Amino acid sequence: MVLTTPPQTKLLSAEELQKMNAYWRAANYLSVGQIYLLANPLLREPLTLEHIKPRLLGHWGTTPGLNFIYVHLNRIIKAQNLDAIYIAGPGHGGPGLVANVYLEGTYSEVYPHISQDEEGLGNLFKQFSFPGGIPSHVAPETPGSIHEGGELGYALSHAYGAAFDNPNLLVACVIGDGEAETGPLAASWHSNKFLNPAHDGAVLPILHLNGYKIANPTVLARMSDRELESLFVGYGYKPYFVEGSEPETMHQMMAATLDAAIADIKAIQHDVRSNGFKTRPQYPMIVLRSPKGWTGPKEVDGKKTEGYWRSHQVPFAEMASKPEHVKLLEQWMKSYKPEELFDQNGKFRQELAELAPVGDRRMGANPHANGGLLLKGLKLPDFQDYAVDVDKPGKVIAEATRVMGVLLRDVMKLNTATRNFRLMGPDETASNRLSAVFEASDRTWAAQTLPEDDHLSPDGRVMEILSEHTCQGWLEGYLLTGRHGLFSCYEAFIHIVDSMFNQHAKWLKTTRDISWRRPIASLNYLLTSHVWRQDHNGFSHQDPGFIDHVLNKKPEVIRVYLPPDANTLLSVTNHCLRSRNYVNVIIAGKQPALQYLDMDAAIKHCTKGIGIWGWASNDQGVEPDVVMACAGDIPTLETLAAVDILRQNFPDLKIRLVNVVDLMKLLPETEHPHGLSDKDFDSIFTTDKPIIFAFHGYPWLIHRLTYRRTNHDNLHVRGYKEEGTTTTPFDMVVMNELDRFSLADDAIDRVPKLRNTAAHVKQMLHDKLIEHKNYVRNHGEDMPEILDWQWLYYSGSEADKTQSIPNVTPTDASSPSQEGGEGAAKSTS
Amino acid sequence: MVLTTPPQTKLLSAEELQKMNAYWRAANYLSVGQIYLLANPLLREPLTLEHIKPRLLGHWGTTPGLNFIYVHLNRIIKAQNLDAIYIAGPGHGGPGLVANVYLEGTYSEVYPHISQDEEGLGNLFKQFSFPGGIPSHVAPETPGSIHEGGELGYALSHAYGAAFDNPNLLVACVIGDGEAETGPLAASWHSNKFLNPAHDGAVLPILHLNGYKIANPTVLARMSDRELESLFVGYGYKPYFVEGSEPETMHQMMAATLDAAIADIKAIQHDVRSNGFKTRPQYPMIVLRSPKGWTGPKEVDGKKTEGYWRSHQVPFAEMASKPEHVKLLEQWMKSYKPEELFDQNGKFRQELAELAPVGDRRMGANPHANGGLLLKGLKLPDFQDYAVDVDKPGKVIAEATRVMGVLLRDVMKLNTATRNFRLMGPDETASNRLSAVFEASDRTWAAQTLPEDDHLSPDGRVMEILSEHTCQGWLEGYLLTGRHGLFSCYEAFIHIVDSMFNQHAKWLKTTRDISWRRPIASLNYLLTSHVWRQDHNGFSHQDPGFIDHVLNKKPEVIRVYLPPDANTLLSVTNHCLRSRNYVNVIIAGKQPALQYLDMDAAIKHCTKGIGIWGWASNDQGVEPDVVMACAGDIPTLETLAAVDILRQNFPDLKIRLVNVVDLMKLLPETEHPHGLSDKDFDSIFTTDKPIIFAFHGYPWLIHRLTYRRTNHDNLHVRGYKEEGTTTTPFDMVVMNELDRFSLADDAIDRVPKLRNTAAHVKQMLHDKLIEHKNYVRNHGEDMPEILDWQWLYYSGSEADKTQSIPNVTPTDASSPSQEGGEGAAKSTS
Repeated sequence: MVLTTPPQTKLLSAEELQKMNAYWRAANYLSVGQIYLLANPLLREPLTLEHIKPRLLGHWGTTPGLNFIYVHLNRIIKAQNLDAIYIAGPGHGGPGLVANVYLEGTYSEVYPHISQDEEGLGNLFKQFSFPGGIPSHVAPETPGSIHEGGELGYALSHAYGAAFDNPNLLVACVIGDGEAETGPLAASWHSNKFLNPAHDGAVLPILHLNGYKIANPTVLARMSDRELESLFVGYGYKPYFVEGSEPETMHQMMAATLDAAIADIKAIQHDVRSNGFKTRPQYPMIVLRSPKGWTGPKEVDGKKTEGYWRSHQVPFAEMASKPEHVKLLEQWMKSYKPEELFDQNGKFRQELAELAPVGDRRMGANPHANGGLLLKGLKLPDFQDYAVDVDKPGKVIAEATRVMGVLLRDVMKLNTATRNFRLMGPDETASNRLSAVFEASDRTWAAQTLPEDDHLSPDGRVMEILSEHTCQGWLEGYLLTGRHGLFSCYEAFIHIVDSMFNQHAKWLKTTRDISWRRPIASLNYLLTSHVWRQDHNGFSHQDPGFIDHVLNKKPEVIRVYLPPDANTLLSVTNHCLRSRNYVNVIIAGKQPALQYLDMDAAIKHCTKGIGIWGWASNDQGVEPDVVMACAGDIPTLETLAAVDILRQNFPDLKIRLVNVVDLMKLLPETEHPHGLSDKDFDSIFTTDKPIIFAFHGYPWLIHRLTYRRTNHDNLHVRGYKEEGTTTTPFDMVVMNELDRFSLADDAIDRVPKLRNTAAHVKQMLHDKLIEHKNYVRNHGEDMPEILDWQWLYYSGSEADKTQSIPNVTPTDASSPSQEGGEGAAKSTS
Repeated sequence: MVLTTPPQTKLLSAEELQKMNAYWRAANYLSVGQIYLLANPLLREPLTLEHIKPRLLGHWGTTPGLNFIYVHLNRIIKAQNLDAIYIAGPGHGGPGLVANVYLEGTYSEVYPHISQDEEGLGNLFKQFSFPGGIPSHVAPETPGSIHEGGELGYALSHAYGAAFDNPNLLVACVIGDGEAETGPLAASWHSNKFLNPAHDGAVLPILHLNGYKIANPTVLARMSDRELESLFVGYGYKPYFVEGSEPETMHQMMAATLDAAIADIKAIQHDVRSNGFKTRPQYPMIVLRSPKGWTGPKEVDGKKTEGYWRSHQVPFAEMASKPEHVKLLEQWMKSYKPEELFDQNGKFRQELAELAPVGDRRMGANPHANGGLLLKGLKLPDFQDYAVDVDKPGKVIAEATRVMGVLLRDVMKLNTATRNFRLMGPDETASNRLSAVFEASDRTWAAQTLPEDDHLSPDGRVMEILSEHTCQGWLEGYLLTGRHGLFSCYEAFIHIVDSMFNQHAKWLKTTRDISWRRPIASLNYLLTSHVWRQDHNGFSHQDPGFIDHVLNKKPEVIRVYLPPDANTLLSVTNHCLRSRNYVNVIIAGKQPALQYLDMDAAIKHCTKGIGIWGWASNDQGVEPDVVMACAGDIPTLETLAAVDILRQNFPDLKIRLVNVVDLMKLLPETEHPHGLSDKDFDSIFTTDKPIIFAFHGYPWLIHRLTYRRTNHDNLHVRGYKEEGTTTTPFDMVVMNELDRFSLADDAIDRVPKLRNTAAHVKQMLHDKLIEHKNYVRNHGEDMPEILDWQWLYYSGSEADKTQSIPNVTPTDASSPSQEGGEGAAKSTS
């Protein structure tokens, strides 16, 4: 195997080289200025302590390398009229990106007070990492960015997400050697197996080895070129190496290498676009080895600094106690010769500014990096056409996500031509019963195929890789560049991307206050295979806590929906796919389950987000004795079954059933735009009656959302609680805090008039629960009266009910489909 | 480059081959039996529906491969007397591991009702994935396991964690091709750069390519051998390929390959142990390509099943509706010829059982996989020797984690000989100011070194890689095999391992109920660089929600500590390092900060976990008007400063200050072993006085912990809340919900006797806050009266206080050290 080295021709003329180097010096100068200076931006006065920020924050180490790459990308964009964006994995190099976006002019257009003159330079410097200013890293405030430079690991999956279905886009993705050590990044190299040059753009990964993290060498920097080459060939790339520190040589090498890499990409695209996709091509990538803190001070206080970890953040501080450091800073900054770079007014000199591309070709102004500008609404079918026929509540059986899959199929179909909708999931699309989508699109697969392969195609838009990180990263990149999507995931595994959700939610929150950022499509999660059906994923990692995690974020960008059945799921899905700038979390089961609302009722219910179910209540015209509330599909089922038990045993008890689809409704209206007013809340939940609330997640969340409500003291919540015993893959009824017998028992305990007369019923409930637990241990299934339970109270037919309970076996229930490999489905027959 | 293929010699004699194959058949037979059968374990009667479980759950696909590897490891363990454990990355293959542990005899020793006879076989089959039985995947209940088979990604980091400082241990680690797609797994291959054969054992990764996930091919299975070889050579391994499906050939190839790989390992160990560690060796690994569902039905209902994704879970179900499936199952099971494998009593035949190693050499009985058996307590210095001298509270300045670092240094030193303590962190040990540890140990580094390297050594026990996943995985593996450690992490980034924490906490919870599992050392987190000091990590990912996440788990295994200063941090650390079977989360700042308690007071306070600080209260002998409570270092500082404001302005106001170190104290005693009784809680917090509670995390957590307490309605919590505005790396005072002016304002609002008389003070507080915000925006630092604030109320010296407030500049405060690259520290001078 031979190392791929770039052609050694001297591509750049002497003048070009000189100008590019000057441009780079300007970017480096502005970077240092941002980190250090409060004033005196052009060093026209001798530098003193008063010109220097009292607290020095920022990362110099990675910055000159980022600037170097930016200048070279500018050259080739301009030379070849490329449509390119820049993803800065080492986002701590914020000053570099801001410097470049300023030099190309975009920054001043967006932020007029950062003008192209000395005053603007002063403002540019002061604002950086300063109270009231901008963060020290690449952020939503940075034009041209779709990638927050905080937590590392997601640069490359964002880059691929941006490239999918953007055939003319080049995504240059700089990956720091620190980031390259993270898991999510290490997995995302394989994204090349999911890219089709026929309709996708190109990603050019640039692995920037500057050798050090905060205080340590990096793993990849201490691998030999031969091992690195082997690694990236193994990942399916053709690596080019650009290594050194002498600027002139490095400029020539980088220019030639970029030319070669772009030529490779164009050749691949030309081939596939002419001849169709045959086999996965070997895409170019660049390994750039350059010193950490390149062009910075070689030594500080006698200690090695350039090319060492001491350059990682600020290479020196202690300006007050060490006057020689002020001198050193001045020398360093003057080494870039600002007088050659900026004119008398502090404006970047025209002959250098001309090196940058113009208009939308500037990477800071590229509309792909402000995806809302390009966003087109999805073509959506009428979701009502997919309605499950529910003639009576609690009788018909359907699988909610399977119904949703049919809707998604047609969303796929209707947007085939525009290719602006993708479905992501870690190999769970079929398992989550969304398989209908495969009638409209295959799974994306650009790797080797075999004749027996099932719905794999390089043109597919269902994306499955067993990496939740990669799924999430792809989707974020896709959304941030103005497209749409949905991520379906087992509820058990969604915590894997907790911190990625955090970062995206914060991005959305921040962009709401940035006037030039246009709204993008919401990030939609479908969480299924949820905790109340233990199925295969057993005890080891069940946890409904993602809702809690989501609700810690700023309410204005988050939405959590718990549709109780298929028609409400359709309505909620339709709403989420139309929404903008939110994170929508939809939690819905995939198993065959009772249906409650016909489409008209579902639309009304979902529009309100919370409501009293009259058909399940018997308090019409009178005050209820108890409010039975529920949120989530299994909690709804168990609550209805508990109501049934109560009504059988206490025919005079007045029960109100409240169902919550939109969890945000519970918050005060002052805390969330969806929040109910206290008046409305009180009218639903009463001000003094006991409320038994069955909740999908941890019970304390409901308390948290409602603790300021009038009737909070009467609220009793049952939800998920960690169990201490060994559990097995099974339905939940006996396993946790939430079951019909216990809910009925709770109600009895809390309704004053029942408390002293219901001993026999309580005894029966406890016996039933024990009987049921025992039955399950022996038979491996729920008792028939649990399995086959239905709602049978219909207006005028109460008499039927008393006859057929408890062990009714109806004949008209739709039969659930069975799935090999999924275990027998819950069945009414 | 030439593919590394195993020697083609026929290593196994005909008899050996026949016996090994029979052993493998037995394991496969027992695996199928567990998945399918309720009864008739030896098929002595014709198989009928009644013998089959009503719900079929479990994963066949990966199981025969896991069994194949187990049988071969048995051979080489026995032949070479190896000390080996088995990590089953594809943990869904639970039936295979259980089958093997049963065949070798361990299972019956641990679970006597699963005896070595027909009745035991019946019990073995029924319990699998059945209510009241065992999970479908490898779990704490499985002897020989240190690796829960739920969420994928951590097999290899667990394996390396087990191998560190276990020189004679071989950790065979099977990695499924599904798991190989995950980020954490992809990063963990680089763990070989942190292993030193001089004192570490060996990891033998076996990448098991069976081609498919749930419904999809895997990425790695669809790479050519040439690309795979390149990838693993790039990762630093020497890959051997074992590929095929014909058992006889596969047995010969696997035996020869294992011999070659173990020979490589022994040669490496011999070389390093004789000649010292020179350069990182190339460790062997095996790529095993075998069919998914190997030896299972080739086709079911005319559809390809063996070697295809349809084998992933149960290859066929629908037993009731398709009688031919019952027949097919019987044929399949009989193809293993159970009559040749088990004797008349159902006992595994002696001549086959003899193939397994004996005693502790059995992988199911290896004590390393039940680490508590091997656990030795750490030698700990007397933590009191590290005390910061605090003659008066709130005057002296120290950096808490720096003090802790000195304690950890001596923990390192005292346990050098036994090598049973490691410190993990993503390149943040120095940044988190634990640098003193480098006086006792270098950073672990077995990759290339350069002369300028700082504290890198192949013998180091401070482990830094920029992958929180890998750090956590290593530490879990290290703890589970009976050693000790601590993970230090920026609070901002700990959410990256949310789901790994989940899995480990659940492991600990489960093992409490497993009598043969011995307690292991607790998993200790130090979270620092916390959210109240924005420092470098700015706005993008600050979030104190890890505490919320942790508190969703079963209280019996979790502990959360918020020591307010250095001496309390020392006391808490000492406690955590001695504890067993918990997850301890310690949250403490690294910045220079006021100290409150001398060592005696710190020990008393930490032992109680919560307490009234008499020196900060003025309600002695009378009822307080208000309780000012705090948890966390910055909340403590702000609360004391608020108390100062209140006392200056309302000299008659009686204030009680309560500090909480151990968050679990707030829970009811019925919910947590540390929980306070209501009586004790009431005596501290009163039953009717306003409580102003300043909390490090999200405020709702305190409500959740206390909502059943008598005085909950008077509790007002200030804590962290997401902000909508652009923030910058700065101290928190003006940035969030928690600051001294606002806390004082809260108290005024809630003390009835102040409400109508304090308008002028409230006005002053609001003005101060505005003044401060404005100051920070202009100067980039807190106002001097904030920066330099101290506690000055000492018994008998109240008079001094009124003279020197608000803008005192003491001369005797210890000077905080400055750190280049860390930004200027908060200073009193």
